[in-house]
Amino acid sequence: MATLVLCNMSRTVTRRCAAAHLKSLACSRQTLSSTRSLPFTLLPGAGWFSRGTCFRLMSHGTAGKSASSRLGRRALLFSGAAVASAAVAGLVFNASHFHRAEMATRVVPAMREEEGNILERCRGFMSPPVTDINVLQDRKDEMRTRMEMLIMETQAEFCKALEEVDGGKFKVDRWQRKEGGGGISCVMQDGNAFEKAGVNVSVVFGNLTEEAARQMRSRGKVLKGKDGKLPFVAMGVSSVIHPKNPHIPTVHFNYRYFEVEEEDGSKQWWFGGGTDLTPVYVNEEDGHHFHKALKDACDKHHSQYYPDFKKWCDRYFYVRHRGETRGIGGIFFDDLDSPSQEEAFSFVKSCARTVVPCYLPIVYKHLNDSFTQEEKDWQQVRRGRYVEFNLVYDRGVKFGLATPGSRIESILMSLPLTARWEYMHEPTKGTREAEMLEVLRNPKEWV
Amino acid sequence: MATLVLCNMSRTVTRRCAAAHLKSLACSRQTLSSTRSLPFTLLPGAGWFSRGTCFRLMSHGTAGKSASSRLGRRALLFSGAAVASAAVAGLVFNASHFHRAEMATRVVPAMREEEGNILERCRGFMSPPVTDINVLQDRKDEMRTRMEMLIMETQAEFCKALEEVDGGKFKVDRWQRKEGGGGISCVMQDGNAFEKAGVNVSVVFGNLTEEAARQMRSRGKVLKGKDGKLPFVAMGVSSVIHPKNPHIPTVHFNYRYFEVEEEDGSKQWWFGGGTDLTPVYVNEEDGHHFHKALKDACDKHHSQYYPDFKKWCDRYFYVRHRGETRGIGGIFFDDLDSPSQEEAFSFVKSCARTVVPCYLPIVYKHLNDSFTQEEKDWQQVRRGRYVEFNLVYDRGVKFGLATPGSRIESILMSLPLTARWEYMHEPTKGTREAEMLEVLRNPKEWV
Repeated sequence: MATLVLCNMSRTVTRRCAAAHLKSLACSRQTLSSTRSLPFTLLPGAGWFSRGTCFRLMSHGTAGKSASSRLGRRALLFSGAAVASAAVAGLVFNASHFHRAEMATRVVPAMREEEGNILERCRGFMSPPVTDINVLQDRKDEMRTRMEMLIMETQAEFCKALEEVDGGKFKVDRWQRKEGGGGISCVMQDGNAFEKAGVNVSVVFGNLTEEAARQMRSRGKVLKGKDGKLPFVAMGVSSVIHPKNPHIPTVHFNYRYFEVEEEDGSKQWWFGGGTDLTPVYVNEEDGHHFHKALKDACDKHHSQYYPDFKKWCDRYFYVRHRGETRGIGGIFFDDLDSPSQEEAFSFVKSCARTVVPCYLPIVYKHLNDSFTQEEKDWQQVRRGRYVEFNLVYDRGVKFGLATPGSRIESILMSLPLTARWEYMHEPTKGTREAEMLEVLRNPKEWV
Repeated sequence: MATLVLCNMSRTVTRRCAAAHLKSLACSRQTLSSTRSLPFTLLPGAGWFSRGTCFRLMSHGTAGKSASSRLGRRALLFSGAAVASAAVAGLVFNASHFHRAEMATRVVPAMREEEGNILERCRGFMSPPVTDINVLQDRKDEMRTRMEMLIMETQAEFCKALEEVDGGKFKVDRWQRKEGGGGISCVMQDGNAFEKAGVNVSVVFGNLTEEAARQMRSRGKVLKGKDGKLPFVAMGVSSVIHPKNPHIPTVHFNYRYFEVEEEDGSKQWWFGGGTDLTPVYVNEEDGHHFHKALKDACDKHHSQYYPDFKKWCDRYFYVRHRGETRGIGGIFFDDLDSPSQEEAFSFVKSCARTVVPCYLPIVYKHLNDSFTQEEKDWQQVRRGRYVEFNLVYDRGVKFGLATPGSRIESILMSLPLTARWEYMHEPTKGTREAEMLEVLRNPKEWV
């Protein structure tokens, strides 16, 4: 009940009722999805996206979730049963959002690795995973399975949170890669709050040449393959969200895992990833909240992670020909293969689970901010810079575009719906636009 | 007078009076420019952009021009004296524009190499040339001087023609390159007819490494420098015009000259260039006119030029990751160093002087075409593809962005003012949008 009270106290920060939000978090996974028409066959017994399975599935969750689901869609709106998701709601409906960011990163809003078996957890996803569920169940303790489950979970949690704030629905596309594997692209375009929101999962496998394998590691380690071939699996979740309101920043994140088998059968593996924010205007509070949430996630694992990966992020997202960073950064890392696979995965899991709490409070905070045409134009100019970075420098995009068989639409879904290039655009000194440029030209410390 | 009659007969294709156009061509070079505020010092005696010099300067031209200029600005509007520029007007005011395209390529609208001395010709430019006029006069017979004069002339003729159709004015920026040379960027943004129009001249010189020199030639010829250094000069005119009306195609052209001095003092030189069209919708007549004008320019020099350079163009402007060409092509060539420097230059001159007659008639023809929001949206999607080509594949852009000291604003002025990326955009079969894609996926013969 505490959360419902908070909701009533925080009218300034959201246009929706918290109860509706709670309802969504408790039950939307199935009921809302029932309207979706998806291009894949339901797996036997999985019952994806059918309203009828909602209640049954919910019974695998917490008692609170189970109770709330039984009340049905409308009844949930103001149901006290929603209290079970109080912690999650606290994350996005807190009157002073950011104080609860750390708490939010510890929230477990859905069935996670710690809670359910493979099949149960899959039911909450936007689509069945790329890998056959029977295969996942057979090798459920292997890292590639645990990572695929994490990226599917991350996609689902983020998409649901965005659908809730927008009111729109993600279009879900499953695609297959001829050479092995495939992906699930979730895209919402021209929504209420979001101009374009893409959340993509891909799981691909096959054989790499030694040269290609070396290029995929930032440290360029030499790998020995059998007859020069190296069986590999690469997977990740990546997302870019471009909101309409110029006071809501663009966010990007990507968490990935790579595994390659050498001649002697031993496996090389590493993780990479990061989350970064690209505002149109500087907002100290937003910047602090975002970086603080990431720092908290990092600090649980190593005190050097945040400072190192923050610097790496500023270096990586640098539009060299403009002499400015793409945004205000966040964290970025690659080639993480220490101290142990378990600990590295645990760190990546913390990061992935920080996506919603580091971004959504900022979205809710600015959802109803008014803006001028000039502010919208400046947003469009910044979108142009975003396109420049993504097409000219982004390693993932470049690799994707150069790789035959890549799914171009998934690679380029990171581009904004609209962008603008003005010749010799230079904001007047002392304006908020000039303030933004100053920060992009001289990255600052936010926490 | 014949042309004035034609003008009255062709109301459907233009909103302006031919006489005003003629007036402009006869006198605008100075009078219209008098309103421009330019960031450079007038050279002694050159009298750029001062109305007072208009009459004096004109006396170097044809009798007709001289006569018309004496009538002053307002009186010219319906003056019979405008007949002197009839041929030029015929180019853009012909009721069936395209029949006169060939004739138009032979029109001499301003003081060209054949007509005036360096100083006289410079007065018609958008700005003084990059190289000091005294230096140009001293070495007026050298190819680097003749080419610099040609690119300046091309810039001026094209800019004036665009200003006339748009009613707006180009912003002229002179810039210097620390390492040697500089450029003149002319940009019109958010005009009446043009969303963004850029016409850029650059003349740069200095020393190249042997490796860099080799990379600059598409055939990668090895060049021997003194202590590994090769003095070079590179110059060119390049332009991209993005109109507002989706029925007016985007045009791009670029003509360039490269000279490098080897260890023994001998000079290697070559030309490159091309003109290509990027329509939003297929228009057979436009495509035929455009390619026919280019073919005629080529055929005067070698019967193999058009077929070879047309194919090269389709190959070069290919957006590989989309499996489509950027537009309907035109001509493209590089490394042209035969049969002689004089003949190669003569060919490049023909090409450069075909820019106005191959494009302007198409602009006038569609200037008042009505269009729907859907057509505008499709134009914006095509603009997105244009950005993809320019940032991902264009050799000039890639080279420029990677070269320290490049003037980024001039390199990226080729990007449209606005662009759009829609996820999974695929036109419905049988629509005009699908027809366009079909042509881009399977380049066709236009003449």
